[in-house]
Amino acid sequence: MDTDQSRFLQHIHDPHDLRKLDVSSLRTVCAEVRSFLVDSVSKTGGHLGAGLGAVELTVALHYVFNTPDDKLVWDTGHQAYPHKILTGRKDRLHTIRQLNGLSGFLRRDESEYDTFGAGHANTAISAALGMATARDFAKKDYKVVAIVGDGSLTGGMAYEGLNNAGVLKKDMIVVLSDNKMVSLSANNPTLWSLHNYFSEALTHPTYNKFKANVWDLTGKLDTFGDRLRSVAGKLERGVKAVVTPGMMFEAMGFRYFGPFNGHNVVKLVEILQHVKELKGPILLHLNTEKGKGYEPAERDASKLHGVTPFDKVTGQSPKSSAPAAYTKVFGNALLEICRTNERVVGITAAMPDGTGLDILQKGMPERFFDVGIAEQHAVTFAAGMATEGYVPVVAIYSTFLQRAFDQIIHDVSLQDLHVVFVMDRAGLVGADGPTHHGALDLSYLRCIPNMVIMAPSDENELRDMLYTSVQMKNCPVAIRYPRGNSLGLPPKERMETIPVGSSVSVRSGKDIAILAVGTMVQQANQAAELLAAKGIDAEVVNMRFIKPLDTAALKDLSARFRKIVTVEENSTVGGFGSAVLEELAVTAPSVAVKLHGLPDGYVTQGTPAELLRLTKLDAPGIAEVVAAFHGSTR
Amino acid sequence: MDTDQSRFLQHIHDPHDLRKLDVSSLRTVCAEVRSFLVDSVSKTGGHLGAGLGAVELTVALHYVFNTPDDKLVWDTGHQAYPHKILTGRKDRLHTIRQLNGLSGFLRRDESEYDTFGAGHANTAISAALGMATARDFAKKDYKVVAIVGDGSLTGGMAYEGLNNAGVLKKDMIVVLSDNKMVSLSANNPTLWSLHNYFSEALTHPTYNKFKANVWDLTGKLDTFGDRLRSVAGKLERGVKAVVTPGMMFEAMGFRYFGPFNGHNVVKLVEILQHVKELKGPILLHLNTEKGKGYEPAERDASKLHGVTPFDKVTGQSPKSSAPAAYTKVFGNALLEICRTNERVVGITAAMPDGTGLDILQKGMPERFFDVGIAEQHAVTFAAGMATEGYVPVVAIYSTFLQRAFDQIIHDVSLQDLHVVFVMDRAGLVGADGPTHHGALDLSYLRCIPNMVIMAPSDENELRDMLYTSVQMKNCPVAIRYPRGNSLGLPPKERMETIPVGSSVSVRSGKDIAILAVGTMVQQANQAAELLAAKGIDAEVVNMRFIKPLDTAALKDLSARFRKIVTVEENSTVGGFGSAVLEELAVTAPSVAVKLHGLPDGYVTQGTPAELLRLTKLDAPGIAEVVAAFHGSTR
Repeated sequence: MDTDQSRFLQHIHDPHDLRKLDVSSLRTVCAEVRSFLVDSVSKTGGHLGAGLGAVELTVALHYVFNTPDDKLVWDTGHQAYPHKILTGRKDRLHTIRQLNGLSGFLRRDESEYDTFGAGHANTAISAALGMATARDFAKKDYKVVAIVGDGSLTGGMAYEGLNNAGVLKKDMIVVLSDNKMVSLSANNPTLWSLHNYFSEALTHPTYNKFKANVWDLTGKLDTFGDRLRSVAGKLERGVKAVVTPGMMFEAMGFRYFGPFNGHNVVKLVEILQHVKELKGPILLHLNTEKGKGYEPAERDASKLHGVTPFDKVTGQSPKSSAPAAYTKVFGNALLEICRTNERVVGITAAMPDGTGLDILQKGMPERFFDVGIAEQHAVTFAAGMATEGYVPVVAIYSTFLQRAFDQIIHDVSLQDLHVVFVMDRAGLVGADGPTHHGALDLSYLRCIPNMVIMAPSDENELRDMLYTSVQMKNCPVAIRYPRGNSLGLPPKERMETIPVGSSVSVRSGKDIAILAVGTMVQQANQAAELLAAKGIDAEVVNMRFIKPLDTAALKDLSARFRKIVTVEENSTVGGFGSAVLEELAVTAPSVAVKLHGLPDGYVTQGTPAELLRLTKLDAPGIAEVVAAFHGSTR
Repeated sequence: MDTDQSRFLQHIHDPHDLRKLDVSSLRTVCAEVRSFLVDSVSKTGGHLGAGLGAVELTVALHYVFNTPDDKLVWDTGHQAYPHKILTGRKDRLHTIRQLNGLSGFLRRDESEYDTFGAGHANTAISAALGMATARDFAKKDYKVVAIVGDGSLTGGMAYEGLNNAGVLKKDMIVVLSDNKMVSLSANNPTLWSLHNYFSEALTHPTYNKFKANVWDLTGKLDTFGDRLRSVAGKLERGVKAVVTPGMMFEAMGFRYFGPFNGHNVVKLVEILQHVKELKGPILLHLNTEKGKGYEPAERDASKLHGVTPFDKVTGQSPKSSAPAAYTKVFGNALLEICRTNERVVGITAAMPDGTGLDILQKGMPERFFDVGIAEQHAVTFAAGMATEGYVPVVAIYSTFLQRAFDQIIHDVSLQDLHVVFVMDRAGLVGADGPTHHGALDLSYLRCIPNMVIMAPSDENELRDMLYTSVQMKNCPVAIRYPRGNSLGLPPKERMETIPVGSSVSVRSGKDIAILAVGTMVQQANQAAELLAAKGIDAEVVNMRFIKPLDTAALKDLSARFRKIVTVEENSTVGGFGSAVLEELAVTAPSVAVKLHGLPDGYVTQGTPAELLRLTKLDAPGIAEVVAAFHGSTR
């Protein structure tokens, strides 16, 4: 950065440079990191609030620990931008979340300082415990530090990790960066029950009074009779008041320190130097503020969690004139359905805004449930409601629903319970990259018995599919659609039921058939135009249902066409195309089928348009694939 | 039961009959239930220890609560036999775990008293919370009680449920039946860190002394100066000593009661009557003993958890002369590998005996990790070790690995980490039925990029495959094999590497090719004999790898055969057969392929032989399918 006027930051090429500084310089370093971060993200967009809240912690960790030999394991990764700035990636931060640029999360192949990849929540404690265990086998002595947010502690996996760490008693440090922002929501409720407890314990006058009493007690008991009597009275009514916030962690075998101010870098260095040398599992509890130090972020309810490019001074992004995202279409449709069907409820795992369920949350808060970053519980909680005749609509991103795979099978499908799964971010998500692409849901859901799986080709179909799903009985139903804007169609007046397993032909042709699902229908249709210009007359069918397939339509198509191309924004391994193959293997084995979809590998990050081009899932790509298949001798 | 000499039990046809009795009769009822249970399971086999430990609790629950209007939600289900005895299924208990008989777990379609199906652990709290939430919507007033073991509290999902219950504050009761048998292991370590904590808190002299002091304090402070000083000193050194075992649950928003003796039925009735009327989330902690009241079970380290038919007096089962189970072959092979490769470790999620890892546990305990019923953590913990160059062998049943689906993708595969997954119970498990069949692993693992998946056809191949897996690099590797005995082959002297993606022809033929994986190779081979007798000359290929496929062999086969049958003990949706279809769609679309495997539905319980016959996966069934396909006009 040739314009870098910073005093310290311009000279910090990696943490070794940071560690040469005097501790008194660290406040300035933090200010410079924060300023650099705001400046960079204002131009590129990305995750801002979490990084702002982690500046002092990041500086202190790299200052005190001998990274990369000592291992920092960041959970989830939203907060890792300052870490990237300090670990040699400052000059590439402007490429973040772009094709061939830095990842917005952690990646082992991006830096040796990224000890464990992240993107999904709750994994850091388990990974760190694995590293600490390996270290002890190898008789090495590096330190392992997992950094987790309070949100991650609503996820059961974090608890599993804490529990096992308490049993194994490895030397490791878990830093809890507690910003009381469990849910990525503007109307943020407290989803972590321990928060209530913490605040009660800490603010309860008895807590501090009692602690003071106890210290005094040892010396001068006589003069404290009255106060002690009062404390004892409190104890009778419940021991809770004398408990420190760390009791739960201590119960699990951790030594607990805190809560401390997570934004006093000098104090943090001192604390970290202290706990660094301690043995066994340590939990360090820091109070942090998401968006800290940047006024527009501090002011905003979501703390500018994830942002598009914005004006650095006002914090405002330019207004978009794009049509509504599918997310919003879903949210509005669900609210509309809930208004007339008192049995329907909405469930999210800490993503009300991301899933569009915030619309239900605002419109009918009593029908809205945010269970925390707890996808497993979300699904079985829904199954419990379904046993009593309620219709839970569980809105979880495609990639996060992987967390509840067993619950969908064991608690929903096996019991013929009616739960509706709505998967946003199915297909390529763009800038968030491989951890967030929803590339596998058609494959992992399709093998589940009695599952119904649909994908809408436009926003009106999404509304109809949701309406249809809610009215089904005795089976799990899934709807998947990608991130991004819908077509901007004029809304249909009322939602209609779609016959289960029915397709619709959207273009007739005679040379070759293209069977598409979801938003690939639009791309396939445009591809057919391109093909027509080349003299290839393609029929395009919107299959709508991945399971059950429209077998009558397939029979008809296989009588009319010798070649069929399937198009899906999902892996071709076990997905929609495989379903077509499995069906035609029985009914029409002589038809040649070309599967076109996402590769059997991880697609990188980039804009959705770039990624569709890269995977040949845009109209020209599809046209190219279809033309080649049409011209082949098969 | 015409020979039923019991005083009360013979008249208890459902819980209404139980509730007509005087509380003073309940001890006798318990004795009769216990005796009936031992008698019945001694003849049929099944789960015994957990049920014995739950007799008093079950009687008390059905006595106090108005079942089935009030909902009992049993976790996992091993302990539900007494519940079945009291809810109208006594006379069918002798059919348990048999074809068309009672399920060994809970099933909603078996009884209205089974409010939520089970088989996998940790689900009850979430389901119960869903029911309590639905009840409040419906403005009904029934009670909801979840009954969980301490083992289930090592699973993160239980924590997610507790956390959400604490937030939602619904009226519900969680009964923790704490038998301190977290792991189904003979060498049972404490896997739940809170156990250490409980025992410390309860046995710590300060705990009781302090409680007593505090009560006294309010009245007569002066005379307790010395004792108080001592207590205060303890407080300085850590507040833990004054904490009740329920602190953690109270922190999560539960009111905690206990621990109480879980085998005093009269006292239990009294306690349940008390907590029944309380509002909000209640946790009732009971100390129970697995195997309680049946001396051979109390004596046995595994408390006769799951048993074959046995002698009621001695508790001994007849010795089996069958060859070693695959489980044992795996355990021995892993120990052998660990002895020469210091980088290899074994990880189980509370199933050391079931997976064969107990052999490693005994032989090299330092290389053995039991993380509790925590499959998610198990996988990411393994990934953490893999980052440091260790080779974790994660042994989890096929159906339970579903719990860690996202971790395999996000933490292992996406990072090209080398973790070996060994899935016992892949395919049909027999008596445990649909919750335990491993019917989907080939489908759900195959869609994961860079995954290698193999299935051994016999025990020597299992050894070679394990050896091969451990030596691979930078990718997840899975080996799957069924429950049950191996062939009894003479062991090969040393383990050998199998080229990845290589198949082997086990029988040459000219009419039709049968491609099989795993133990289906043996069945296919026998089927070929049957077919030969009918004049059909079938080639049989042991494909060994489901991913990557042996594409060279497939090319050769498709040149030589017009028809191919694939055989797998996995769903045909997205499994091995689909992989063959996907490959041949590209290279040889004119070959007709018949997929043969498990149906797209849940297979019932029964003996393995019965189930293989039912699904036509035994030799005659395969022969029938192949003959029909061979004779078809396709």
